Amino acid sequence: MTVFTRDDFLKLDHQDPLAPFRNEFHIPQGVIYMDGNSLGAMPKATPRRVREVTERQWAQGLIKSWNTADWFHAPRRIGDKIAAIIGAEQGEVVATDSTGINLFKAISAALMVNADRSVIVMEGSNFPTDNYMAQGLVEFLGHRHRIRFVEKEGIMDAMDDRVAVVCLTDVHYKTGHRLDMQAITARAHRHGALTVWDLCHSAGAVPVDLNDAGADFAVGCGYKYLNGGPGAPAFIFVAKRHQDRVKQPLTGWWSHRAPFEFTRDYEIAEGINRMLSGTQPILSLCALEVGVDLMARADIHRIREKSKQMGDLFIAAVEQQCDGYGFAIVSPRNADERGSQVSLSHKNGYAIMQALIERGVIGDFRAPEILRFGLTPLYLRYADVWDAVEILSDIMARQIWKDPKYHVRQAVT
Amino acid sequence: MTVFTRDDFLKLDHQDPLAPFRNEFHIPQGVIYMDGNSLGAMPKATPRRVREVTERQWAQGLIKSWNTADWFHAPRRIGDKIAAIIGAEQGEVVATDSTGINLFKAISAALMVNADRSVIVMEGSNFPTDNYMAQGLVEFLGHRHRIRFVEKEGIMDAMDDRVAVVCLTDVHYKTGHRLDMQAITARAHRHGALTVWDLCHSAGAVPVDLNDAGADFAVGCGYKYLNGGPGAPAFIFVAKRHQDRVKQPLTGWWSHRAPFEFTRDYEIAEGINRMLSGTQPILSLCALEVGVDLMARADIHRIREKSKQMGDLFIAAVEQQCDGYGFAIVSPRNADERGSQVSLSHKNGYAIMQALIERGVIGDFRAPEILRFGLTPLYLRYADVWDAVEILSDIMARQIWKDPKYHVRQAVT
Repeated sequence: MTVFTRDDFLKLDHQDPLAPFRNEFHIPQGVIYMDGNSLGAMPKATPRRVREVTERQWAQGLIKSWNTADWFHAPRRIGDKIAAIIGAEQGEVVATDSTGINLFKAISAALMVNADRSVIVMEGSNFPTDNYMAQGLVEFLGHRHRIRFVEKEGIMDAMDDRVAVVCLTDVHYKTGHRLDMQAITARAHRHGALTVWDLCHSAGAVPVDLNDAGADFAVGCGYKYLNGGPGAPAFIFVAKRHQDRVKQPLTGWWSHRAPFEFTRDYEIAEGINRMLSGTQPILSLCALEVGVDLMARADIHRIREKSKQMGDLFIAAVEQQCDGYGFAIVSPRNADERGSQVSLSHKNGYAIMQALIERGVIGDFRAPEILRFGLTPLYLRYADVWDAVEILSDIMARQIWKDPKYHVRQAVT
Repeated sequence: MTVFTRDDFLKLDHQDPLAPFRNEFHIPQGVIYMDGNSLGAMPKATPRRVREVTERQWAQGLIKSWNTADWFHAPRRIGDKIAAIIGAEQGEVVATDSTGINLFKAISAALMVNADRSVIVMEGSNFPTDNYMAQGLVEFLGHRHRIRFVEKEGIMDAMDDRVAVVCLTDVHYKTGHRLDMQAITARAHRHGALTVWDLCHSAGAVPVDLNDAGADFAVGCGYKYLNGGPGAPAFIFVAKRHQDRVKQPLTGWWSHRAPFEFTRDYEIAEGINRMLSGTQPILSLCALEVGVDLMARADIHRIREKSKQMGDLFIAAVEQQCDGYGFAIVSPRNADERGSQVSLSHKNGYAIMQALIERGVIGDFRAPEILRFGLTPLYLRYADVWDAVEILSDIMARQIWKDPKYHVRQAVT
């Protein structure tokens, strides 16, 4: 077994073609930020853009900025930029609303297409909002559908001719396990089912090619790897081939064929605009655009290479430096099966994570015992990965996590 | 008939107890802003707050700010502040999502309560997104319900025992006509129907007392009279007496009883939180809070008095200065029946409004021939009202509006 030292990690930083990107982000002094899979760091360009939107466009331009600053087309404009990151075409994506609401639209649209089918296949251990949204939808439609919850091993066998829609998250929020989008989509289609892919932990983190995989619908998050800011609007994708037939129920005026004609009756917009609903939060949308623009300048394949290598090294360093402390590696060891995070489990995970955070290593904890470490190649250095594991090792060796203060639960964890 | 001069208007400004509020807003030089009913002006305190959220809370605090800056409770905290403005109790309002999406939740919730009834009463001439949302909902539920469109004269007679929900806008977006919330709600309740009140043109503009009127649900807008910024999140109200029995279908994780337990199955939150859905756009929410805080410092009854007087004087000045130019007064002449705007109609309304805007008088145009002038007592002066009418008179007298450039349609009008 190779024994690593900090110098090995430093050498990788010196050779890293993505290294200059770190300077595009604001990273606080003394922080090793490994929670970009929950809230991405702030691009340095964001405050200027936000000032422009408030102090110039809103304050000076007032209502006219809907035209002159093109606020009205922001969902489409930003959607087109996200499309390029996830293997979609121009006109297949809009940035809008929240992930959950977009998921509601996508599943609803799929159910309306496959109106004679009754089953929704989902992963039971998925990030809960997806499941909750589907459960709310099923109840609202009078329990005419049912959700077939499976885990990853059971996905392929869960498909049959009663399945209307398969709704899965590409990279698992907790384990970081990545599904085979291409194979699952192909299997779903063989059974006449449609797919909804949740890209929350994929967009900007791993190369996604929705059209190559034949995906039907997708949704995703703006505030993780796209660095759009807290609660940034989400996005929704509909493959071009479906766009003239799909409908969704949240038919606000932005999804109307001609919203400024103020007609009484709804007429559906052409193309992806039909997935919009109401007026969008422009400050948050424009902040998102800064993150998306920055991500668009990076080569996603280089991001992926660095992410895989950082993940492999993180695992190796944990095994080398934290042996015997009771950690288990939850994420796949094979980097190809892993998204851009490494999750460990430990029965004292909550307190250990609090101790890490106090030492400046910010990851997060997911009940009951998962410690998540997000790997964001644009601003995380190899040396950070080493240092994080060193600090973790120290916390374990000196049993620092036992301090009662690390056991106090936060409102939001 | 009294003949007014500019001095009469100036005198009112000198006596105006609300006059100091104008200095709390950024109003561009040379602009008379009469479109605060579409997008409110920017409070001067907003840029500092937005900088704090981006440069300190996000950039420095990163993920921890969900706790330390209490982002997570922003919908509830801001909702409580809005509650005080609209006659609701603490715990009856959350600031979240868009007006249309909140309307979808409210109508859906009402339909689930009145599950044996099939009719939704709405005003056909209402702002379209309300009608579109209801139409999308009806279609999604398989046309088991129908929308009974009426105009204001027909509302009372439209109620019968088949009506599940009456969904109306308190102040009409186009005409500024105000409905009798109390009488209509009482009539609806006599027939066993529930009410959903759209307060988009009311909150912060006229005194609203939802609980006094017995309202069941309400929604409203953050970017008009609440000055929350472009596309600011909206709000939703549910009367306490309904909160333990209502459900809505957009059951994202923020509406879960314990979102951070990450359980597989949805369990509905207690109280108003059940009307939330997914993660909210924090930048836009915090900007909204600045506007709401500013509004909360003003006396809504003083706002109303000034608004009524400005409306009366605007109408009087138009009649005095613009006689014979083909304008009709569309809004009620009785200020008690009017919201905080005056609408005129003119067959060349579009071009006239473009000419006004070029001269710095910013109102807006609503097809086919309505010119809207919003009255925002916190930053509009009586003298502005006089000056606006003088400029309008000049545009008509010299037929300035005939210039072809004023007839070119903007993307967003």
